[in-house]
Amino acid sequence: MLPGVGVFGTGEIANVLVPLLREKGFEVRAIWGRTLKEAKETATAQNVSFHTNVIDDVLLRKDVDLVFIVCQPFLHAEISVKALGIGKHVVCDKPAGLHQQDALKMVRASQYYPTLISLVNHPLRFLPAFTHMRRCLQEELIGPLPEVVLMDVRVQMGTLFPEKYNWMCDAQMGGGALNLVGSVVDLVTFLLQQQAVRVHGVLRAYTKTTPAINGIRQITAPDFCNFQMELASGTLVTVALHSHTVPAKAFSQEVLVYGSKGHLVVRGGDLFVLKEGQPKEEAVYVDVQDLHFATNNSLLPRPYIKGLCKMVGALKEAFGSKESSWVKAPVSTAATFEDGLYVQAVVEAIRKSNESRQWQRVQLSTDAPLNHDQIIRYARMSTM
Amino acid sequence: MLPGVGVFGTGEIANVLVPLLREKGFEVRAIWGRTLKEAKETATAQNVSFHTNVIDDVLLRKDVDLVFIVCQPFLHAEISVKALGIGKHVVCDKPAGLHQQDALKMVRASQYYPTLISLVNHPLRFLPAFTHMRRCLQEELIGPLPEVVLMDVRVQMGTLFPEKYNWMCDAQMGGGALNLVGSVVDLVTFLLQQQAVRVHGVLRAYTKTTPAINGIRQITAPDFCNFQMELASGTLVTVALHSHTVPAKAFSQEVLVYGSKGHLVVRGGDLFVLKEGQPKEEAVYVDVQDLHFATNNSLLPRPYIKGLCKMVGALKEAFGSKESSWVKAPVSTAATFEDGLYVQAVVEAIRKSNESRQWQRVQLSTDAPLNHDQIIRYARMSTM
Repeated sequence: MLPGVGVFGTGEIANVLVPLLREKGFEVRAIWGRTLKEAKETATAQNVSFHTNVIDDVLLRKDVDLVFIVCQPFLHAEISVKALGIGKHVVCDKPAGLHQQDALKMVRASQYYPTLISLVNHPLRFLPAFTHMRRCLQEELIGPLPEVVLMDVRVQMGTLFPEKYNWMCDAQMGGGALNLVGSVVDLVTFLLQQQAVRVHGVLRAYTKTTPAINGIRQITAPDFCNFQMELASGTLVTVALHSHTVPAKAFSQEVLVYGSKGHLVVRGGDLFVLKEGQPKEEAVYVDVQDLHFATNNSLLPRPYIKGLCKMVGALKEAFGSKESSWVKAPVSTAATFEDGLYVQAVVEAIRKSNESRQWQRVQLSTDAPLNHDQIIRYARMSTM
Repeated sequence: MLPGVGVFGTGEIANVLVPLLREKGFEVRAIWGRTLKEAKETATAQNVSFHTNVIDDVLLRKDVDLVFIVCQPFLHAEISVKALGIGKHVVCDKPAGLHQQDALKMVRASQYYPTLISLVNHPLRFLPAFTHMRRCLQEELIGPLPEVVLMDVRVQMGTLFPEKYNWMCDAQMGGGALNLVGSVVDLVTFLLQQQAVRVHGVLRAYTKTTPAINGIRQITAPDFCNFQMELASGTLVTVALHSHTVPAKAFSQEVLVYGSKGHLVVRGGDLFVLKEGQPKEEAVYVDVQDLHFATNNSLLPRPYIKGLCKMVGALKEAFGSKESSWVKAPVSTAATFEDGLYVQAVVEAIRKSNESRQWQRVQLSTDAPLNHDQIIRYARMSTM
């Protein structure tokens, strides 16, 4: 039997997620909102019988065994850690909290409760074009993985900012292009199975106001990012994220991977390959329009909704096993909380690079004491 | 009457240039090559009656009044300066010599002989899509020029390297992507009428050998460049140059300029605009296929050939005036030797940034003595 679901959040994603969960057979038992009013609105719109603005009221419900956290990032760590502590499975939307300290708390909790599911929602990992691309890379269709020399990502979208002011407009909250950067950074790890050693980036906040957001609170989150990463093997990753493009709901995405024997490229939802010595690209996977509900009104790009849909399908499979409460295989490609921590470290390094005008090393926070470096230095000096 | 032309060079461009000059009514009187053999081959192929490997033998000819320098860059400064000294008009291919010192010599000579034409061949300035884009920017179609916030350039081409090893394969000679970088840097100045203050860049030389170049001499010139420039007004320019794309002769180019009231974009040879509040892009200029001769066998991208064709047309107009030996108006949009010097300064800063992993200030060499900074500093100190 599938677990009952509690949804934390009342925004765009919550409104896409609830019908999607139902379609796959999950029962949505509770909606949490920051205010009772927001919770009530979403619960009414989505026809969910229980709503609240008290976190524990969802977590303590016996008919809720899986929580989806799709609210403001500054609550991600608190709710995730609490939920795992009470014994609930957790799928937390990106980003994994506000900064590495948040993500680290989440990692610790997930390691402490390994029998519970703890995933970060990076839906592109479930988009068929990318799962196929990953398989092609593993099967060395364009040469061995360590010989991938270059990956180039280009994302253009109409607008990053919602109708009403929320955390996506706020730089401190990790909004705007920073959130998109996180998705791309995660996608790189997923495809190339490597982490970044150092990064360089330029961030810009060109959009200050929109027709709807033009009062005292203005947009501070960047809407533009151009960044480069160098991976452990020396592979270079170049990324351009624009959100000036039009029409407002447009979304285009191109991901190119150059290996020693050709290249693979995802355009939109389709995957193509060009093998060395061949005159032109061949289609490897062509996207099928199989979303059963209208998404035209959502600000979420279609590939993200489609990925989310596949992810919920994978969760259904994971819980549908008869042997135990859940099995790992169907969700093994999903992002873990550790992946979330790494993404935070890269995003932090890009922010720092934007300020320092230099390449920055990616520094992953660990459980080591804060004066770790100092201790090591003294230890070395005393043995000299 | 149009001046007789001497062509320095026997490569790709020479073979495109000669028929193009003839089409516009210029007489090609002499071909110079580094070796007599090369000079003879090109002269025979192009049906030019005189060939030589002695520079002065072309420059001293009375029937040559205009020289096109399309040979190896390390000779550009020497031939340009000599030609102007003898009283010949000069069109020199990009780059303007090997480094700023070369370009500076050329600038001095051109300033000393202002009655002679002295231009750098940056053909994109003459491509109709870009001349129209420039006019649209000046007419503030997408808002005032200083409010242009972002320009994004993406160039993908099959291969940068010729059949036989030449200077384009050599990093020290300014070959490969560095030459392409120069074209883009010049295009930015042409369109936005502003110079870069600082730059950041990543260069890579992925291609070491080709089926034809795989002996002792390998390719050292980069075939990939990703760079960013900050202009005086704060405008950001982001550029991605790839030459891994296929098929081998493919060439695609997208130049996007975002203003405060919309954007302009050149794709291939066509220009589109999107004005604020409009639902979609409109075509401003659509390219017409008006090249009268086959260019399929040339490594030169079509827009460059087309631009070169228009430039020769402009030269014809400039010399065709009855009032004086030449008039400036038709060639007033062409790149001057000063422009060539600036491009060298930017390319040098990008190379430096690639090594230092930091943003670099663009430092233009001037006629000032080498210890100029020191003198100024002492002078300031003594008045304190």
